[in-house]
Order: sequence, then structure tokens, then C-alpha cells
Amino acid sequence: MCGIIGIIDNESSASRIALEGLMSIQHRGQDSSGILCFNKNLTMKKGVGLVSEVFSQWSVPESRLAIGHVRYPTVGKDPSRDAQPFYVNYPYGIGLCHNGNIINFCELQEELNRKRRRLQSSCDGELLLNVLAEELIENDVVQAVENVMNRVYGSYSTLSLIADQPGKIIMFRDPWGIRPLVYGSTESRSIAASESVALDKFGLPACDVQPGELIIFDRGEVHKHQLKKERKAHCMFEWVYFSRVDSVIEGRSVYDTRLQLGRNLQLDHEVDVVIPVPDTARPAALGFAEAHDLPYREGLIKNRYAGRSFIMSTQKKREKTVSKLNVIKSEIRGKKIALIDDSIVRGTTSRRIVSMIRDAGAQEVHMLSSCPKISYPCYYGIDFPSKKELIACRGEIDMIGADSVTYQTLDGLRKAIGLEDLCMACLNGDYPVECCTAQFEVMREKEREEIVWQEY
Amino acid sequence: MCGIIGIIDNESSASRIALEGLMSIQHRGQDSSGILCFNKNLTMKKGVGLVSEVFSQWSVPESRLAIGHVRYPTVGKDPSRDAQPFYVNYPYGIGLCHNGNIINFCELQEELNRKRRRLQSSCDGELLLNVLAEELIENDVVQAVENVMNRVYGSYSTLSLIADQPGKIIMFRDPWGIRPLVYGSTESRSIAASESVALDKFGLPACDVQPGELIIFDRGEVHKHQLKKERKAHCMFEWVYFSRVDSVIEGRSVYDTRLQLGRNLQLDHEVDVVIPVPDTARPAALGFAEAHDLPYREGLIKNRYAGRSFIMSTQKKREKTVSKLNVIKSEIRGKKIALIDDSIVRGTTSRRIVSMIRDAGAQEVHMLSSCPKISYPCYYGIDFPSKKELIACRGEIDMIGADSVTYQTLDGLRKAIGLEDLCMACLNGDYPVECCTAQFEVMREKEREEIVWQEY
Amino acid sequence: MCGIIGIIDNESSASRIALEGLMSIQHRGQDSSGILCFNKNLTMKKGVGLVSEVFSQWSVPESRLAIGHVRYPTVGKDPSRDAQPFYVNYPYGIGLCHNGNIINFCELQEELNRKRRRLQSSCDGELLLNVLAEELIENDVVQAVENVMNRVYGSYSTLSLIADQPGKIIMFRDPWGIRPLVYGSTESRSIAASESVALDKFGLPACDVQPGELIIFDRGEVHKHQLKKERKAHCMFEWVYFSRVDSVIEGRSVYDTRLQLGRNLQLDHEVDVVIPVPDTARPAALGFAEAHDLPYREGLIKNRYAGRSFIMSTQKKREKTVSKLNVIKSEIRGKKIALIDDSIVRGTTSRRIVSMIRDAGAQEVHMLSSCPKISYPCYYGIDFPSKKELIACRGEIDMIGADSVTYQTLDGLRKAIGLEDLCMACLNGDYPVECCTAQFEVMREKEREEIVWQEY
Amino acid sequence: MCGIIGIIDNESSASRIALEGLMSIQHRGQDSSGILCFNKNLTMKKGVGLVSEVFSQWSVPESRLAIGHVRYPTVGKDPSRDAQPFYVNYPYGIGLCHNGNIINFCELQEELNRKRRRLQSSCDGELLLNVLAEELIENDVVQAVENVMNRVYGSYSTLSLIADQPGKIIMFRDPWGIRPLVYGSTESRSIAASESVALDKFGLPACDVQPGELIIFDRGEVHKHQLKKERKAHCMFEWVYFSRVDSVIEGRSVYDTRLQLGRNLQLDHEVDVVIPVPDTARPAALGFAEAHDLPYREGLIKNRYAGRSFIMSTQKKREKTVSKLNVIKSEIRGKKIALIDDSIVRGTTSRRIVSMIRDAGAQEVHMLSSCPKISYPCYYGIDFPSKKELIACRGEIDMIGADSVTYQTLDGLRKAIGLEDLCMACLNGDYPVECCTAQFEVMREKEREEIVWQEY
Repeated sequence: MCGIIGIIDNESSASRIALEGLMSIQHRGQDSSGILCFNKNLTMKKGVGLVSEVFSQWSVPESRLAIGHVRYPTVGKDPSRDAQPFYVNYPYGIGLCHNGNIINFCELQEELNRKRRRLQSSCDGELLLNVLAEELIENDVVQAVENVMNRVYGSYSTLSLIADQPGKIIMFRDPWGIRPLVYGSTESRSIAASESVALDKFGLPACDVQPGELIIFDRGEVHKHQLKKERKAHCMFEWVYFSRVDSVIEGRSVYDTRLQLGRNLQLDHEVDVVIPVPDTARPAALGFAEAHDLPYREGLIKNRYAGRSFIMSTQKKREKTVSKLNVIKSEIRGKKIALIDDSIVRGTTSRRIVSMIRDAGAQEVHMLSSCPKISYPCYYGIDFPSKKELIACRGEIDMIGADSVTYQTLDGLRKAIGLEDLCMACLNGDYPVECCTAQFEVMREKEREEIVWQEY
Repeated sequence: MCGIIGIIDNESSASRIALEGLMSIQHRGQDSSGILCFNKNLTMKKGVGLVSEVFSQWSVPESRLAIGHVRYPTVGKDPSRDAQPFYVNYPYGIGLCHNGNIINFCELQEELNRKRRRLQSSCDGELLLNVLAEELIENDVVQAVENVMNRVYGSYSTLSLIADQPGKIIMFRDPWGIRPLVYGSTESRSIAASESVALDKFGLPACDVQPGELIIFDRGEVHKHQLKKERKAHCMFEWVYFSRVDSVIEGRSVYDTRLQLGRNLQLDHEVDVVIPVPDTARPAALGFAEAHDLPYREGLIKNRYAGRSFIMSTQKKREKTVSKLNVIKSEIRGKKIALIDDSIVRGTTSRRIVSMIRDAGAQEVHMLSSCPKISYPCYYGIDFPSKKELIACRGEIDMIGADSVTYQTLDGLRKAIGLEDLCMACLNGDYPVECCTAQFEVMREKEREEIVWQEY
Repeated sequence: MCGIIGIIDNESSASRIALEGLMSIQHRGQDSSGILCFNKNLTMKKGVGLVSEVFSQWSVPESRLAIGHVRYPTVGKDPSRDAQPFYVNYPYGIGLCHNGNIINFCELQEELNRKRRRLQSSCDGELLLNVLAEELIENDVVQAVENVMNRVYGSYSTLSLIADQPGKIIMFRDPWGIRPLVYGSTESRSIAASESVALDKFGLPACDVQPGELIIFDRGEVHKHQLKKERKAHCMFEWVYFSRVDSVIEGRSVYDTRLQLGRNLQLDHEVDVVIPVPDTARPAALGFAEAHDLPYREGLIKNRYAGRSFIMSTQKKREKTVSKLNVIKSEIRGKKIALIDDSIVRGTTSRRIVSMIRDAGAQEVHMLSSCPKISYPCYYGIDFPSKKELIACRGEIDMIGADSVTYQTLDGLRKAIGLEDLCMACLNGDYPVECCTAQFEVMREKEREEIVWQEY
Repeated sequence: MCGIIGIIDNESSASRIALEGLMSIQHRGQDSSGILCFNKNLTMKKGVGLVSEVFSQWSVPESRLAIGHVRYPTVGKDPSRDAQPFYVNYPYGIGLCHNGNIINFCELQEELNRKRRRLQSSCDGELLLNVLAEELIENDVVQAVENVMNRVYGSYSTLSLIADQPGKIIMFRDPWGIRPLVYGSTESRSIAASESVALDKFGLPACDVQPGELIIFDRGEVHKHQLKKERKAHCMFEWVYFSRVDSVIEGRSVYDTRLQLGRNLQLDHEVDVVIPVPDTARPAALGFAEAHDLPYREGLIKNRYAGRSFIMSTQKKREKTVSKLNVIKSEIRGKKIALIDDSIVRGTTSRRIVSMIRDAGAQEVHMLSSCPKISYPCYYGIDFPSKKELIACRGEIDMIGADSVTYQTLDGLRKAIGLEDLCMACLNGDYPVECCTAQFEVMREKEREEIVWQEY
């Protein structure tokens, strides 16, 4: 998962807007941050850390165009090498930011090598930039992007800055529409970003870039080109976990969806109180409590200053940071608890939380996941562990130590989101984009130790 | 407001515990962070910023003793000069961390100057350290601290590391018990801190240091000395706003108190939904919603990555950072809203939030404050603005733009906390510690421009 | 002026050798430092400052190939943007370091712009890299470099790393041989650099790269290709001032040349003692003293810790730092002094030194320059000021305050170096490479304020 | 060895003067740098590194008073802990900088410990500051310093800033006058420093502080108090090696002394050329060449950018950095060389240089030391190695690989300096200050591994 943003601003505030916008989608990636600004000259700055860290001492330049990126470390070992945007000086000077995962990465990498193009990172974004640069040497933008869509398989929501005079921002989304991408425009300012919250900040209403669509910001104008169509398949996990609760994805409010996910949960046991695992599961817990007329309490408190667990890079570190949660004993002691989490993946975190709640004196602990069982790997950008690590695949119901574990149904999920065109491959194995799974697994297995997964 | 911690640990992890503990009370101060470690040698490190920033590159040493401090900038201009702990090498080598406000600061400063003691900062902690050092040159610890209590007026919850062999941690609290201070101890480890959450983390149950009490950690032992008694006066604002919601202050759960504060609120208007100003007001809003059988919704969302507003130093910056809040329009549009905040001080923030909610299409906005009207300045460590800036003193009901504004009653507050021995001077003007108000006002007025106040 | 180095090392110490080698040619440029290492992956690091500063915290990686650069700021405004090496990823991945000055810069820049190649800096090296990359897309290395030589006019001693497998270092020198470039090779290690001192350090004897020659380090082998011939024109100022005194340039020892330059100086006045302006003029002063049987004394002492004046960027700063010189009064008081400097350009520094010596009580001060009068601008990489600033063009003999000023003769210079094939354009206006002077002057005039010149 | 400086300046430039002055005596210590400024408030900054490094990013404040220090690491392990100035806030606020070595350190340390004064470093300066502070609590400045002189044995040239209003700079020198200390004064500015070069820079003529004398800068006035007298014993090594060549120590020019040291050297072999080991031995080599009518040549060249060897902390590192020397082969090949160095201590460096010269083709190499044989340890601040490491004590004439080794005579040294009151304990074992050698040796032996010694 990553977050991207691109701006054309007539008041030359594009760089500042890029940074403020990136902070509003920082939840999509805390590993590295970067921007590329264009104002006659190009200026690039990127580094390992949060936007507030990487840019804390930086004097923000005026610029009419900018693109920016925050990175969640899916694949790749050296965070400083993999930070985006990426840049090539020929043709035009092109910068690119990418959210997604390219499944024919290896084939494309080999092809580029044969053509003597050197890739410095193992990052999809650099590959995509080089394919785009190749096409732009021979073609105009529309034809070039259409060719890119025909060559590249997987999920790619992409923003690119082209430094011809006076400069363009172009954006395109894979034909399946797996990762989100929105844009908004007024006469004086156009912004595109991964989520609508980045536009809210600047008072711009958000439209979705359509699957397979290319959109170009050129001076004050917005040009749209529908280039390729496939079956739509929006990742359901954006609503369940990734996107910010105040975003609207494909026209569906994340907050409303999560509230409804809670309402759709069913529990066969009697409980006294409903407690969310903060922060993501809060609306689902509220929805569940209301639907079952149960009291809702914040019995688990998160320390804001302890760092989110996913900036840690090893399992060992992740275990340690769980201590950023604390319990309100008075809300737990002697009670039967319905504990709501957004999802259960490995189960490691769930086991610890259940244990904390038992230690605080709970009589019973019933775990509910607002997401159905995750049983298959994701090849489109989410770092779910391999099958053997997925708790749902191990069939050990009691392994997290709860008195019961209840999952959302597939139908409950579909209804809560209110869309049919979803990618639910990790739930039912139905992959919208064909991929050579065996090869992909080998590549992923090699990089397993570096991979990071965040459960809450 | 500041947060302090002190540790003796037989496993030599005192430095690490100090840092982890400080992170759990970082909400008490984000301006600067520092620790002093003792393990045969003394090592001090302090700087401007959060614990995670100041100590990010620091290799944490092993140590048996440590004290630490996080600072909220009440009075004083240069944050790097005012960072705590403070240290003098004679006698023994003494380090000191302090939470509170000394009201006879000027008289003591003049006295120390006459005695040729140079103070480098305008910080109460440095003054207190020098008074303590003076007394320890002539007296044993118990007599010295008793003399300090007789010389120093105001609020002071204090932790000091005395580097005699093998070293002691001593702590004492002003005779009124204005600011909190707790401790806990096992055979191998003793910890004292501003709030119980810092002890929870390490599995130690917390006891309160009594007003006017001195407690000494010496090797594995805990010695207690009740030195001075006055009328108890615990600051009510610790429950209302300052302390973390999972702390227990003077035996009273902060979470339960806030829930009860919400239940005690009365509203004369009909509303559709209850919305808290996140994060502090959440339990009060829940309590209010339950008591009145109204739906509770999180219609305001806070961006975790935008920084808390109070680390900004000017009014202008504070106004800007309010944009870290966003609305969930679907929960607001067309509805009559009960908006719950912990307190209303200047009213600046409240006005902006009310305006955001109106812009999102609310039909009516009714503001409720879980705290009564704040009408008097605080001289014991909270940076309430001067009378003329306090919204409650200006009598302008409509100035925040709400349809109605409702405050907690004094009685509702007292009952929610469940204690009689409270300092409510800012509410009713009844000051427990006499002070030369005029002189104090002059001093404060001069430093007004540097002063920072956080409303949520 | 810049310094460059390139290495293939079978023991994978190329990066370390590059850094140590750069330190030995740091006198050629103190503005910025950088290297590019290749060992399966490419690693680049460059920054503003000395090698010891830029690389002080850097963990030097193992690598088989490396190129490096130290930069003297001739033309260009932003030192961080202009730091070398430069890099493009297509074809192969090519890094390039350059010493020299391209006189058809503007024409080539326009041509590249037309072909949609974006240049980010105003640096010759980036331009040269893009011309080379263009040629390498279509041609093999030998043909590509021949084409480069046909397209690019001016001085260019160039080192390039080509990251095909297993990687090559190539180097070529403009057909006039204006700037120096040497190389040496054993079975296990090959090094090329601006000066022989960088090879001495590693025990390699140095050969000159011939004007118009291309040399390729490929695995253990050294391939040589004479591509283009013009009249040879080695810059005389390398012996007079730029090169390190222990280097050998075009087979002629710099030390011996400077000693001989002193011997060739004639003075028509009687003096008591010979004093060099340290450090460059020391051998010339010694030669002069011996030839005239006069005592040689170090009456001027340089403070090693005050920084060389040329790292300052404005005239104002340059004037200040002259105070790093101090006098030995006992060697000066009451005496007639022959003061020897390597050259006199603006005269600013000379005037101050003469004044210092007068203040110390000298009876007479006679200034001698080991270099003839500089009367014409240089277009091949030395930042001589414009004509109106050159002291020799202003005809004011007495402007530096000395009792007499004596210059080397052209013939004395030629004999001291012992070569006929010299570029002495700045002395006699005979420019070996034709250039559109008018256009060049305009470009230079615009950047005058940023330009830096070092007199000693 | 250390360098110290202190200033009162009516124009409030004391901080800037301190930094510029420290750069001119940086040769006395490159390990750490620090200053303490006083202008109503005290500001201290110190750190590990050169003045240009520690203060590169520092915004220099205006101040009327300042003291500063550069440190050569004689004894003590942690350079960041041992950086000077040191400071105590009682009485007055006192800062102190010190050059020298206290031989009753252990006794005084124990006494201070008994009196409950905590020392944080193993640094003489901190000890001296605490003794001075103790005395100033009870006495006026004159009596206090007299008592210090009666309690402290060894070498101590000391500068102290006393922050009473409006502040004083005081300085005193041990009764033997072992380390240098000079001062100068005009109506508007007074400066004291280790060497006269620091005053030259600001146009102030230098007077010596007398052994056992206290001098006070108080407002525009200079007060002098001769407090204690002992046999004078100025360290001869200041002229031979430590002081800058343009300094005047005890009224004797260092340059003239070194020239004379060369003239006084006798050699029983015929040689062709005289070559100095740069930089220190240059005047001695010149004196020797002139006295024997031999040609003087700079056959060894030092790379300015490779760092002086003594900032390396281990023998291993020292061996490596010798490569900063290079030879001019043409001056050496086939010749009989007289190689002049300032002194020979361990012999390690000498052996390498002799070997370099032989490799360059010298026919014979005769080594001459401008200093007599060093046969005894120094207890007054020079880090000569223990007896068993001193080459002169091992009697191995041929161990450095030269054809002959010739030392200065004691009488030749005395005559060159032109003073009788010298400390030559390291040459003849005649120690001016009695000390408990055995205890001292034990202490030193323990810290041997950290100790650093610089041969050239």
C-alpha cells in the first residue's frame, strides 16, 4: 500500500499542497516520503521516514507542479533505494509515483534489461517509469499510456509529472481499478490523490479516475481518455482497513461501510459490553453495539506516542510494540466482552489482546472480525503472509485464546460496501488478473524476511 | 503541565524504562524531553522534541537509576534552555525533574541571587533544585525536604536523583497535592511517575504519594515520611483534560469520571446525534448519549499525522493546524447535533469546529462542555489565558456560533470525580495557596506572547 | 578545475581507493565531492564539502568499480545540484565525471533540449554525459566516443563508468590535451586520475592519456584507441599553480618546474632576503634564492585551520580570510624583501600581503610572480576574472603597493616547463580551440557574481 | 596540551573573537572545542571536533565576555565528557578552561569526594574548577586563587569566567610557569590566550602572565597579583614542537629558536641535500643547511587534506595515516640525505619516513633530531610514552633504519632558546615539581590504551 498525490496550482503552492496532502494520506505508508516539484527547474526530495520527519528542516520551494508519495514497504529491501518518486531525464524529464503491484514484474524487468535499461531498485514504480519512458520516446501521451496498459499486468494507480513546457500531470489506473485514485479540479488548481481526504483539505470535491482511464492535467484543463476496459475489481480491504475512515472510495463512504459491517455481524453468545480494538474497528463496534442494543465502551486505549506497529521491520519488534495498548479495567472486570477488530490475519496481535483482556478480569472474551476469513494470498499490493501463516488457513479456532471467534460473511461484506465489482481474491481465491502464481511465490518467498504486515 | 518519571531497577534497565515510561506520559508535554541516568557515572541527555525524536539516534545505556521529564511549555522562552532534568554537582550530584508551578518564584530567585547562586533558566525546576541543593549541604534528606516545603509555595510534584553511593531516588509533593504523583515497587524494581499509566506498562500497581509526603527509593527499600499537611486541593482539570483516559488519579478512574461527566450534562434542546470532539471528549459524549438514549457517532475525524496543536507556539499556527480535523458528512447533514468537548477556554477552536459542522450541513449545533465555565486564571501550572481572553469572562454566549452552549455544573463536576478535596480555583476563584497575585500577573503578562495553550 | 578518479579493483576496494585517491587530489576542488560505485548494484553518494566531510559518516561499501569527483566551482550556481558524478540509467547505466570546460555548451544544450533530453544542472559534466548516452544508444564505445569528440569543443578530461556486465571504466581526453589525465595498471588493479599523486599512493606508475585518446579498463585489460588529433596545448597553469607540487604532468615534475621558474626570475633591485607566499610559491622562492645566493626565509606563516580562501563564495569573504597569514617580524623588520608568489591575477591578495609586510617593518618590498602577466580570459576551465578585473590589463604597476613588481617572461616559463605544446592563451591570446567568444562572454557575465577565484 | 582563550570586549564581539582566536591555536588540540559566552545570560557550546566543525552550524551570539578551549586528549577516555569549558552555578556561575596537568589529581579528587563534590569527568579542568569554586564560596578572588595555588601541584595555565555582574575574566599560571599564557589589553578589549598568535590576529601586543601570577580583567581594567614564587621551569618542548612557529614564548621567538636549533646541529657525515620532515622541522632544516652551506630541498610533501595523524586514536590508525606524506623523487634519487625532524620519540614515524626515502632511491639517509634524546616521562602535560616505549631508552640506534642518527645536545637546546629557566625533565630527569611518581605511573598505565601521541 502506498499513497500518492499530484497537483497543478496556479498560485505556485503545489509543493506545499503536496506535503500537506501527503500528511492526510500518511496512513497509507510511513516507511518513506518524497516529492518532485517543477517550476522551470525540477527539485526532488525523498527519504526514509514520515513526511513530518523527512521534510522537517526542508525549505519548501514555490512550484506550479508537484507529485508526491508515501510508501508502505511491500516488497524490497532497502527503504532508501525504494523511496519514490522515481525520475528519468529522457524524454522530457519524467517523474512517477505508483500505488499497486505489478505481477509481470519479472518478465518486464528482463525485457528492459535486454534493451539495456538499468533498474536500480526492486520497486514496481521504477519499472513502470521505464516502460512509460520507452513508450513516450516513440509516442504521444495517450498512445504511450495505452501501450503501457497493454504491457503491464496487476494493480497500478499512477501519477506522473512530465516536465515539458509548461509541464503536465498525468494519471492512470489499471483496467481492473484495484487501487483507488481520485481527482478534483477548479480553474486555478487541480489535485489528484489516492483518497478523497487529501482533496477535502483543499475544498475540492473528488471524482474517481475510472479503471483503464487516463487523465491529464494540462495548464487549467482536464482531459479524459478511457483507454482499456476489463472486469472491475476494487479491493474490498480499502473499506475494511486501509483507507481513512473519512474517505469516500468509489462513491461509498468508508465510515458508513464500517458501521454497516458491524451491524451485519452476528454473535451466538450473550455479552455485556462491546469493545473495539482501536482505532480502525471503532465504527464497526459501534454498529454492532447499536444493532444488538449493547453498551459500547472504549476499554482498550492506544498510546498515541508509541509509534504505529508497522514501522517496525521484524516480527520481534512487532510483538514488543503491542504494549502501546492499555486496558480500562473497570470496563472489563467480571464482564462478558464482545471484542471487535477490523480483520484477523496472522492472529498474533489478536492473541495478545485477548490475553490482556483476560488478565484484566474479563469473564468471557468473544472475538469478532468485521472482515471475512482471509484464506488466500494477495498479489495486488497487500502484504498478506503466505498461506501457511494465515490463521484462517490453519483451522485452529482456539489459537487466539478467545471463547469464540466470529467472522463477517462474504455477503455481509458485499452488502456493507454496497458494490458488486469487488476484488475478494484473498477471501475466495477468485483472482481478477491472471498471474503466473508459481513464479510470483518464489520471488515473494525470497523476500519474506523483510516483509512487514500490520494487523491494526 | 509536565510529566516526570523515576526508576530504581536491579536489572540495570532504568534508562530504557524511563524512556518507555515517558512515552506513556508524553501527552503531558511534547515540547522537550530528557533523562538523567546513574550507573557509577551520570549520563544526561535532553533536547527539544518528543521522546521518539530526541532519543531516536541515542544508544540507551544500562543504568540502575534514572529520572526523566517531558515538558509542556508553561512559562519560559527558550525551550532548549528549559528542558529538564536539571543538575548540580554539589552536594553529591543531584538531578531534579518537576511538575508544577512555584508562586513565590520571584522572591526565591532574588534570595538565591543574593546568595550568589546563578540560575540559567526561568524554569521552576532549576530554582527548586538549587533550594534543595542548599538544604542538602546543611541537612539530611528528610530535614532538607521539610525545609524546602516550608520555603516553596505552589504546586510541585518532584522527583530527584541523588548520586551518593549507591544512589537514591527521592520524590515529594506539595502539601496541597495539586499535581498528581504515584509510585509502585517490587523487590527488584521501583517506579514513580506523574500518572499510573507509566506503571501499568511494567505491571506495577500504583499508590499515590500523599500531599506533603516525601518518599525515598533506597536500594530495594521504600521509605515514607509525612512532612507537612495543608488542606488537600487536587486539580480537577487532571480528570477533565490533562491525564490520560486510562490513568487512575487519587484513586478515581479518569475514564469513569469522564463518562460520568457526560451523564451529568443536561441539554434543553432536542438533538438527533451526539458527536465528540476527538479524542478527549469521547467518553463524556458516550456517557451523555447513553444517559439521553441518543445515537453516538464519530462525526469528526482527527488526522494522526498532523501533530497536536499545542506544539505550535503562536495563535496563528494554532489556527492553521485545526485543519487536522475532518468531518463525516453523512453523519451530520440535515441533523441536529450535540457536540461535546472537554472544556471551552478561549473559544477559538470551538468556533472553527462549529463552523465546520455547519458547513457540512448540520441543521442545529448545540455545544456542551464537560467542564464548568473557566472564569479565573490558574497559578498552579495550567496555562489558562488572562481573564480578558477567557471566553467565559466575556459573556458572549453566541461568539462560538453555536445554537446553544451548555456547561457542566460545579456540582456535576464534583460528583463525577467523587472527591471533595479539589482545587477549582479557575472555576470559583477559591485559591488554596495564597499568592501575591499582582506580582504574578505582571510576570505572566510579560511572557504572554510565548505562552501556549491547547484547547483539544 | 576539478579532480577525477576511476578504479577497477579485483579485491573490491574500488570505493575506498576512490575516496583515498580523491583526498590526494582534493586541492583541485573543495566545493563538492562524490563517488559512484558498482558491484552488481550501483551506489552513488555526493554532497557539498570536502571528501572528509561528505563521507565522514558513510559506511564505505565493497565494490569492484568506482569513479569519483571533487569540484572547484567554475560555472554554476547551486553547488548541491552541480556535484558530480552524473548518472543516466539508459543505456546500461552510465556514470560520468568531468574536468574541463565545454565551449560549445549553449549549442549542445539547445540541441539536447530539441531532442527532449532534460538537463537539471548548468554543469558541463551532465551535458557531456547526455551526449555520450545518446551516442551509446546507437554505437559501440569506440565509435560513440569518437562521435563525442567530433561534437564537443573545449577541454574535457573525462572518466565514465559503464554498468554493463561486469562493467567498464572508460576515459578520454580532448584532442588538445588541455587538462591532465593519467592512468596506471597492474594485473589486479587499474587506476586513472587527474594527477599522478593519486596513483603514487597505491604504488602505480602513471602514464598520460594522450590528447584525443580513449582508454578502456575492461576486466584486467587496458585497451587504447587514438581517435582524434589536434595541435597539443597543455595548460601551463597546471605547473604554475593548480597541480600538487609532487605530481608529474606530461612527464615534467611540477616541483622541478617551480624550482626552475624561480631560477629564471630576474630582479633589478638589491634585496636582503627571499620570502615565499606559502604554500605554492615555496619552490620558486627557493630556486630564486639559490640562483641569486640570497637567504631564504619563511617570513609568512599560514594557519592550517582557517580554511583555504577559495571555499568562500564572495569577494567580501575572501578579503576576510586573508588573515590566515601571519608574519615572522624578526625576519622582516628593517629588511629589503623579495616576495615571491606563484602568480598575480586580481592583485587583491598581493596588496594585502605587501601591506602586512610593510606593517611588520620591511624597508623595501619587491614582488615577483613566477608566472608571466595574465592578460586574457581563459575559456578552458580556469576562472580568471574578466579583462577589466585582471590587474595586468589595468596597467597600474603601483596598485599593489610594492616597490617593484616583476613577472616571469614567456620564454622563462616555456623553458622551466620544458615543453613547446602549451596553452598560454591567457598570457598571449593565442587560443588553441576556436570559440564564439562573444556568446561565451555573455554567459559568463551573467554568472559572474557566483564565480570564485583563488589567488593562493 | 590544550589551547585556551579569554576575552572581554566592549563591542560585544567576545564570542566571535574566541572562535577566531581558537582557530589560530587549534594546533594545540584538535580533539574537542568549546566556548562559554556571557552577556547577561551564559551560553555554552562544546563538542568533539575542530572549531570549524563544532561551530559550523552555530549562530554566534553577541557577548561581552567569553572563554574558549581546544583540547588535545592527554588523559581521559570519553572526548565528549572531557570537552572544556567546565561550569558550576555556585558561587556566581564560574566557567573554567585549563591547559596543563595536575599531579596531585588523585589526592584532590578524594578530598572533593569526601566533601560530597561530584566530578563527572577524569579531566583536570573539572577538578580545578571545583577547587576554585570551593575557595570562592569562602574567599575573595585573590585569596581564593592563592589558596588554589597552595593546594594544586603541577602545571596549570588557567582561564576562568566569573559571571558576577558585570562579569570578570581571571587567569593564573602555576608557580613554575610550565605551560605558556599571555595577555594583551587596550581600552576597549582585553584578550588572554595560550600563545601570542591569538593576539596578533587582533593587533594586541602580548605580555606573559608570570609564573604564580593572577591577572583579572574587570570592566576596562587589568589587575595583577603576584601570589606565589617557585623556581621557573618553562617547558622546552613548546619551542621545539608544540607552539606555532610564529608565536613568541617567554619573549623568545619560536621561529628564531628553531632556526638556531638547526644551526646548532652537528653531523659527522657528508651529505648532498637537507630535507625537513614537514611542517615543524622546516626552520631547523633551513638553519642546518645554511650553517653547513648545503642545499635545502622540500623532498617530502604533506597532503593537507588527509588529517593530522594525532586525531587518530590508536597506534593502528596512526600507522595508516603516515601515507599523507609523499616524496619528490627527483630530489632524493642517488643522493646522500640529511633528514631533519623536530624530535624522535617512539621512532615509529621516523622508521617509515626513512624507508620511504630509501625506496625513492636515496644513497644514504642521516637522521637529525632538533631536540635532544627524550629519556624520561613527562608529568606536566605532554603525553610521552612510558620509558619502555621511548626509543632513546631502548638504545637501538639502528632501529629506525637510518645510516646515522644525531640528536641535539642539551647545551645546544639551551642556547637556541636562550633561557636558563627551562623544564627539561624529559631529557635529564630533573623534575621541577615533586610528585608521587609511583602512584602517577599506575594511573597512567591504566589509561595507556586511550592515550595518543603525535610525532609530527
